[in-house]
Amino acid sequence: MNENISIKENVDIQVSLVLEKFKTALVGVERVVSSRSTLPILNNVLIKADKGGVEVVATDLEIGVKFFLGGKVEKEGSITVPGKTLINLVNNLHGDTVNLVSKNNILEVSCGESRADINGVPADDYPEIPQVEDGKQVKIKREVLDGVLSAVDFAVSRDESRPVLTGVYFVSKEGKLAAAATDSYRLAEVVLDFNLGAEFEVIIPSRTLQEVRRIMGESEEVELKVGENQVMFVFTNASLVSRIIEGEYPPYKQIIPTSHNLSVEFDIQELVDALKTASIFSLGGSNNVRLDVKAGGEIEVSSESSQLGKFSAKVPAKVEGEPSDITFNARYVLDGLNSFDTVKCVMELSGKTAPGVLRPMGSEGRLYIVMPLRS
Amino acid sequence: MNENISIKENVDIQVSLVLEKFKTALVGVERVVSSRSTLPILNNVLIKADKGGVEVVATDLEIGVKFFLGGKVEKEGSITVPGKTLINLVNNLHGDTVNLVSKNNILEVSCGESRADINGVPADDYPEIPQVEDGKQVKIKREVLDGVLSAVDFAVSRDESRPVLTGVYFVSKEGKLAAAATDSYRLAEVVLDFNLGAEFEVIIPSRTLQEVRRIMGESEEVELKVGENQVMFVFTNASLVSRIIEGEYPPYKQIIPTSHNLSVEFDIQELVDALKTASIFSLGGSNNVRLDVKAGGEIEVSSESSQLGKFSAKVPAKVEGEPSDITFNARYVLDGLNSFDTVKCVMELSGKTAPGVLRPMGSEGRLYIVMPLRS
Repeated sequence: MNENISIKENVDIQVSLVLEKFKTALVGVERVVSSRSTLPILNNVLIKADKGGVEVVATDLEIGVKFFLGGKVEKEGSITVPGKTLINLVNNLHGDTVNLVSKNNILEVSCGESRADINGVPADDYPEIPQVEDGKQVKIKREVLDGVLSAVDFAVSRDESRPVLTGVYFVSKEGKLAAAATDSYRLAEVVLDFNLGAEFEVIIPSRTLQEVRRIMGESEEVELKVGENQVMFVFTNASLVSRIIEGEYPPYKQIIPTSHNLSVEFDIQELVDALKTASIFSLGGSNNVRLDVKAGGEIEVSSESSQLGKFSAKVPAKVEGEPSDITFNARYVLDGLNSFDTVKCVMELSGKTAPGVLRPMGSEGRLYIVMPLRS
Repeated sequence: MNENISIKENVDIQVSLVLEKFKTALVGVERVVSSRSTLPILNNVLIKADKGGVEVVATDLEIGVKFFLGGKVEKEGSITVPGKTLINLVNNLHGDTVNLVSKNNILEVSCGESRADINGVPADDYPEIPQVEDGKQVKIKREVLDGVLSAVDFAVSRDESRPVLTGVYFVSKEGKLAAAATDSYRLAEVVLDFNLGAEFEVIIPSRTLQEVRRIMGESEEVELKVGENQVMFVFTNASLVSRIIEGEYPPYKQIIPTSHNLSVEFDIQELVDALKTASIFSLGGSNNVRLDVKAGGEIEVSSESSQLGKFSAKVPAKVEGEPSDITFNARYVLDGLNSFDTVKCVMELSGKTAPGVLRPMGSEGRLYIVMPLRS
């Protein structure tokens, strides 16, 4: 920190910040600040200096992100400046300390031998980021939250016509934390024996959760506040508020098969390789790949295209029960297998038309279901 | 190599290859084989097996590439198959050896427990790749050719309206090898004291040279054959034939200033950082950045946008001659500086309207000229 700052006259803000912290904050808000919103002020980042330090804020009205920086505040105040310009500028600066001074709606950013004057807009019109004050409050370790999100987030629907499916469904109930996501062709679920100390159920937009994973960085613990319309994540030096998706999550537990008549254990990487290669001959179509589970102890993975040709590969497997074949969209099976962080996996089948259940071996509480295709 | 191959009956080709060599060949032809040519057979890769081994060939009629693989040929013959399918397939295979068998225009590719049948087309209609038999022949070390290409290739024009400028101009004459490229806004040139043993001048398409750099890989030496309409590069296990760009290269030597009244020496990375940051405030316009060379020993780099604001940074410099300012398109200066592999650079100026000359210090024979903008 440069200790030799003299207070300038007639300025609206004057602060000095650790450059690296300012960069982290700007990277954190980067994907929330728009570059072409119809409401021009949403293209801006809000910089607010008060006794407590400096806040860097951005919102797209669905998600609001605030970073709390320390810094040396010589003059309190606030200003908004175009986010893209500020982020590009600061990413290119080198040094230890960056000084921000605003006067007449111009933000002067200086660092070493570089100095920029960015045309800004008063902060008065910048939308207020809502707080979630009264709601269920729980704390989750970062690694637990990260594990839960990576177990299910990829399975959300991209189709806005059923909004509830575009989010992840979280339930804290009876000493368990569960999360689920589905696009109606496949379903990912994780259930952990984890008493958060408060019960709630909430559907959080997938995009919000992507930002949460980007921002939570080094925070050891994340505080989650579930309000009526909003959810808030509090990290060590930042917070994120997002809308909740309204509506009832479908009663997905009903489609989880309770029994099976064929169980197949295999090496995940081997099936991934075979499915990826088989996909080459089924692209353009519905990505149909046939899995033929054989009593001798192998899965024959095959695909065919009248135009390109055909493919087959054999994957060794431990087979228990009645051999059968089933056809899946290879991409859906691959998504599930790629989300597992174990070496082996068990697949449970109950004939050609029943959903297939994948369970990574040694990772309790995880489940992935894929609907079969007609072969 | 699998030594237990039995010759199949009635096949058109039967060979076995080292998988990694086959992958290298397919990566090498990947960008030449089209995926949607109006002449469908150009979407295919030609596989040709004869006594000498296996050839993998692709052409888009402008560039033709051949890879020579060893391999064990049980049955000689040829077939063409869709390049994209074959490349994707082989990239996904694992193992030491891959076996190719063709019969009735279907290519069977087998490797370990995987087997694909790819629908092919007879090789009869595949265009012949021309050879350059009589022409000037020279040999160049790979590292010399690579150095020459990276010194100039980036400066070629992307504008097809003046075809000669879309290539790199090579001259071997009087014991020197020279290469130049220009888009009429800037010019890159390298001249080496290098007697190739044959004299020629030729304009080679930039795209050809990109493929040359991709393919030459580990070849220690490259043979260059300059014919009347074609140029041929011969590598250790591959060759590439390309058309030559017809026409006269502009007499660019005339625009290289022979004197200057200001010389400025600076650290390349420092000027790169300043120019990149200054660009943020001149984007959308012509990327105007002003360099103000000051007697005291610095370059002030500045830019301004009525909409965004303004920027300035100071770069220390050794200044000799009459201080002056000049305005450049920042991108052109950055392209040149980024192509230099030295720490320091000298810029020679002769007023605001004369071209600026950049010379990397310690890299003899290199030169980069940028036309100034009106400030």
